[in-house]
Amino acid sequence: MLVEFGRTRVLCAASVTEGVPRWRKGSGLGWVSAEYAMLPRSTNTRSDRESVKGRIGGRTHEISRLIGRSLRAVVDYKALGENTILLDCDVLQADGGTRTAAITGAYVALADAVSYLRDRKALKGEPLTGSVSAVSVGIIDGAPMLDLCYEEDVRAETDMNLVLTGDGKFIEVQGTAEGAPFDRAELDALLSLGTAGCEELTKLQLEALA
Amino acid sequence: MLVEFGRTRVLCAASVTEGVPRWRKGSGLGWVSAEYAMLPRSTNTRSDRESVKGRIGGRTHEISRLIGRSLRAVVDYKALGENTILLDCDVLQADGGTRTAAITGAYVALADAVSYLRDRKALKGEPLTGSVSAVSVGIIDGAPMLDLCYEEDVRAETDMNLVLTGDGKFIEVQGTAEGAPFDRAELDALLSLGTAGCEELTKLQLEALA
Amino acid sequence: MLVEFGRTRVLCAASVTEGVPRWRKGSGLGWVSAEYAMLPRSTNTRSDRESVKGRIGGRTHEISRLIGRSLRAVVDYKALGENTILLDCDVLQADGGTRTAAITGAYVALADAVSYLRDRKALKGEPLTGSVSAVSVGIIDGAPMLDLCYEEDVRAETDMNLVLTGDGKFIEVQGTAEGAPFDRAELDALLSLGTAGCEELTKLQLEALA
Amino acid sequence: MLVEFGRTRVLCAASVTEGVPRWRKGSGLGWVSAEYAMLPRSTNTRSDRESVKGRIGGRTHEISRLIGRSLRAVVDYKALGENTILLDCDVLQADGGTRTAAITGAYVALADAVSYLRDRKALKGEPLTGSVSAVSVGIIDGAPMLDLCYEEDVRAETDMNLVLTGDGKFIEVQGTAEGAPFDRAELDALLSLGTAGCEELTKLQLEALA
Amino acid sequence: MLVEFGRTRVLCAASVTEGVPRWRKGSGLGWVSAEYAMLPRSTNTRSDRESVKGRIGGRTHEISRLIGRSLRAVVDYKALGENTILLDCDVLQADGGTRTAAITGAYVALADAVSYLRDRKALKGEPLTGSVSAVSVGIIDGAPMLDLCYEEDVRAETDMNLVLTGDGKFIEVQGTAEGAPFDRAELDALLSLGTAGCEELTKLQLEALA
Amino acid sequence: MLVEFGRTRVLCAASVTEGVPRWRKGSGLGWVSAEYAMLPRSTNTRSDRESVKGRIGGRTHEISRLIGRSLRAVVDYKALGENTILLDCDVLQADGGTRTAAITGAYVALADAVSYLRDRKALKGEPLTGSVSAVSVGIIDGAPMLDLCYEEDVRAETDMNLVLTGDGKFIEVQGTAEGAPFDRAELDALLSLGTAGCEELTKLQLEALA
Repeated sequence: MLVEFGRTRVLCAASVTEGVPRWRKGSGLGWVSAEYAMLPRSTNTRSDRESVKGRIGGRTHEISRLIGRSLRAVVDYKALGENTILLDCDVLQADGGTRTAAITGAYVALADAVSYLRDRKALKGEPLTGSVSAVSVGIIDGAPMLDLCYEEDVRAETDMNLVLTGDGKFIEVQGTAEGAPFDRAELDALLSLGTAGCEELTKLQLEALA
Repeated sequence: MLVEFGRTRVLCAASVTEGVPRWRKGSGLGWVSAEYAMLPRSTNTRSDRESVKGRIGGRTHEISRLIGRSLRAVVDYKALGENTILLDCDVLQADGGTRTAAITGAYVALADAVSYLRDRKALKGEPLTGSVSAVSVGIIDGAPMLDLCYEEDVRAETDMNLVLTGDGKFIEVQGTAEGAPFDRAELDALLSLGTAGCEELTKLQLEALA
Repeated sequence: MLVEFGRTRVLCAASVTEGVPRWRKGSGLGWVSAEYAMLPRSTNTRSDRESVKGRIGGRTHEISRLIGRSLRAVVDYKALGENTILLDCDVLQADGGTRTAAITGAYVALADAVSYLRDRKALKGEPLTGSVSAVSVGIIDGAPMLDLCYEEDVRAETDMNLVLTGDGKFIEVQGTAEGAPFDRAELDALLSLGTAGCEELTKLQLEALA
Repeated sequence: MLVEFGRTRVLCAASVTEGVPRWRKGSGLGWVSAEYAMLPRSTNTRSDRESVKGRIGGRTHEISRLIGRSLRAVVDYKALGENTILLDCDVLQADGGTRTAAITGAYVALADAVSYLRDRKALKGEPLTGSVSAVSVGIIDGAPMLDLCYEEDVRAETDMNLVLTGDGKFIEVQGTAEGAPFDRAELDALLSLGTAGCEELTKLQLEALA
Repeated sequence: MLVEFGRTRVLCAASVTEGVPRWRKGSGLGWVSAEYAMLPRSTNTRSDRESVKGRIGGRTHEISRLIGRSLRAVVDYKALGENTILLDCDVLQADGGTRTAAITGAYVALADAVSYLRDRKALKGEPLTGSVSAVSVGIIDGAPMLDLCYEEDVRAETDMNLVLTGDGKFIEVQGTAEGAPFDRAELDALLSLGTAGCEELTKLQLEALA
Repeated sequence: MLVEFGRTRVLCAASVTEGVPRWRKGSGLGWVSAEYAMLPRSTNTRSDRESVKGRIGGRTHEISRLIGRSLRAVVDYKALGENTILLDCDVLQADGGTRTAAITGAYVALADAVSYLRDRKALKGEPLTGSVSAVSVGIIDGAPMLDLCYEEDVRAETDMNLVLTGDGKFIEVQGTAEGAPFDRAELDALLSLGTAGCEELTKLQLEALA
């Protein structure tokens, strides 16, 4: 599926394979992981291909791990059985918030893949214990703002990514002071704003899956 | 631009940068090259990312070189001046003929990039000496056929990629006997069929650029 | 300097070099970065060397970036002038909280390096705008706890790393639901506990530097 | 065996191992592949070792694949049984046409290896369905020419490699316009010239094997 | 264990695992190997991390192999049974003679590991047939000297590493003329001096193990 | 030049380039280094290509460094001027003693390269202060022996490589106890035997250069 947040466009695809990685074999448990990448022309200035450079950069690693971890928070491995779902999130166009768009889209692809397995009677129960969505929030010129585009992201004093479940609990909180360190009141405002944003996304996800 | 040949879809983008690679500096000549890659889910069975494997496979290398070589055949480096045009061809969906689709689409992206440079008065003349298009042809059950999709490609006894200029001359001829070796008569039939196919593509390219 | 937090021991060393990385030359600004690594026998079960594997793992990358980012939050690059300070954090023994120990110790090494430059009259002003310390907090059996050791870390439902300035502002907030997602009240309790922990560390840092 | 074409010298050796690569196990079918490399001093100007650079270049990959593909065209895998024949083609001295020399020599090494297996009663039938030879042809100053040496190769407007069976059928046709694109008449002339050249080589191969 | 020779400090740790590398499985024989590395700040001028460079340098490889080979000279693999002992030698501070310090310390760690296995009744006999120690000797301003520190090492005309058993036999002799080649008399003097030095070390090792 | 010692055959070639590596520029001093490699079929059982494995093994590194170091012992860098001589030693056939054959042959190639530079008046003096040759000696069934072939090498209890100048001084002494450690008397016997062997080789080198 193709997720669009403003001008950011991410292609999210789930691949289902029978079996699990070697270290998990025979456990009766499934596995979910993710890989994130950007096309070289997804940004305004072309960036070099990581395949050509021969190694994956720290940022790509970090985001791939974040997406996988976020989705695994709502997965019941026993119910999934020894199946692996791999989520590919490829950014076709980037204008800020690619990692949160990827998480939000990857959840929908994951739910689709689970339906596919359910239709094929390949599950031992209901593997999804909730839904997952994510937003980026930040403080710009002193004001908390939702869904930063690239230009805003660069200007933000504080940049925070929030991953929440559909019922409003936190899976991941990642806030970084890009400019001046932030105080507790600012942090509280960002958390409230992001929680509201994820509520909206949860509705859109339900519509997409309906 | 997005090129679609049957169910094959390739995203072709040109990036223009001032200056040329180091080995060419001060020569007054420009440079054109290409990078080809497939998204992991572009094929029916997911393939591993080359960035994760840490090295580019032989096939990817080969096709990237073929695309670059094909386009360079119609470029006048002096007229281009010390500018570099890099063509990214990313396969979103693959159903046979991705390399020929990439060449055909990359030419259009190249012509667009040249127009952009012309509008900015950054050229020393007209760098394109012609147009380029490419088709795949093959022999299936003894009959020559144009534009093989994946299933046909696998069944083909002979697989040939042809790159031609808009006025019907050959830039590249690559024929491989997948099954039985082919004789001169079969080779002649494939060359004629491919020449006709490229004529059609040249017309479509002109329309796209108009 | 050698930092010890419970049984965790991290060797933090600062290396000062005149000049800055190429992309920053001529800007008049300094640079600070960090590299984190674990000795193979720092953990109970020996882990493979990343130099032998030929690539740095995602976790190592992530922590190196976190340490560098945290310290840079209190650095005034203009006052530093075109000098580079590189912080090496090598874990000799690991028992939970290695990344927060590394940040806390790296700050002391950084402050030492700045004193060294100050003594040599190599600075253009006072490059440190504050101090930095970090703690890990978590929820274990429903209760918020400070400074998790490895065994607690594994049992924690939620694991949070907090990086604060000496005057109690946030530089980095990284919370992850390892088990069940956490609600806002739990998040608030963790933030308060961590803030108090960093206050203590700030005092110890001042003593170490006195 | 050492193949010499003009001043080009290629060492071709076949290595036979029982068993096949993992993906082919249990199929009852054999496997043939090839590796091509140039010694650093085989060219006039020393080229860097690919082992030192840590990666195989696109050209080396491409030629290794071409040699393997060409030889496999005359191999009956069932008759070979689950044996693997690996052909090493190492260029000691290069003066144009190293890939075609390598194919021609590798066929002789392959036929030798098959004889060795036949003598040891390790075959299930006759694995060679024909012989293989290869030539390079090109257009220089408007005239089609056979067996280009390095200096001619550089000057050639069109460069074509042809791989044929002993009975004159095509296995591989690879033509590239280095300078001006070529028309159908020129292509026809090159195909005829190359076919005649391969006939000669087939005779020489028979003599070498006798 | 931490070995100190003058200002050189090396952390030597043994890791015992049941089983042996694949190529040795089912042989009934054990295995001993070693890995050597320097922390980036162990030298006066910081050296780059090999994990960051993505490849182990020749010197590191060479020393790791030397340590493993030296220790294996006193190991009876049958008595060890199918167990592997891996010795990690990490240089915290370097001031000449790190490889000989590593060997001397690694022997003590090895003997400790063997005791551990003996206590757990995991051995089939006594795997150590002797002890191992090592020294560096050199010719400085014409005079043979023992235990060169870094400054002396740089000035030495000849640099020799000797590895001996506890009963004074040679396991390894590595002498290199850094400046002028050396004659037989000088070589004899170095061998005698080193033999005496290793006798001293053997006593210290016995004390450490007592 | 092709060196043959028994059945061992090594191709030694010198490449001269004006200028020196970056770290040596402007010093007025030259540089000499070496690269050693084995063709995959030089051994009885084919070994994998290091270029395909993507990294050079420890043994290759070690031998390349040994060859370079040995030759540099007789080079006067000032007289060489800012020129670089790179020696490629490629083993075509291996039957023991490849490293000593490589050193002995590389010296001849080096001397040839120096003559070439002398003829072109590119030297500032006489860069060779002596000649270099090398032999392998060992103890087999208790008896010291010269020039071990592969089979003897495997059986040797002690294996020693000696590199000497033409006037009988030692450049490198590398002895390893493969089986039982060796005593001083055995060491003395090996040194005498090797010294005599190198004397013979020095004569052969002079003849080759005459």
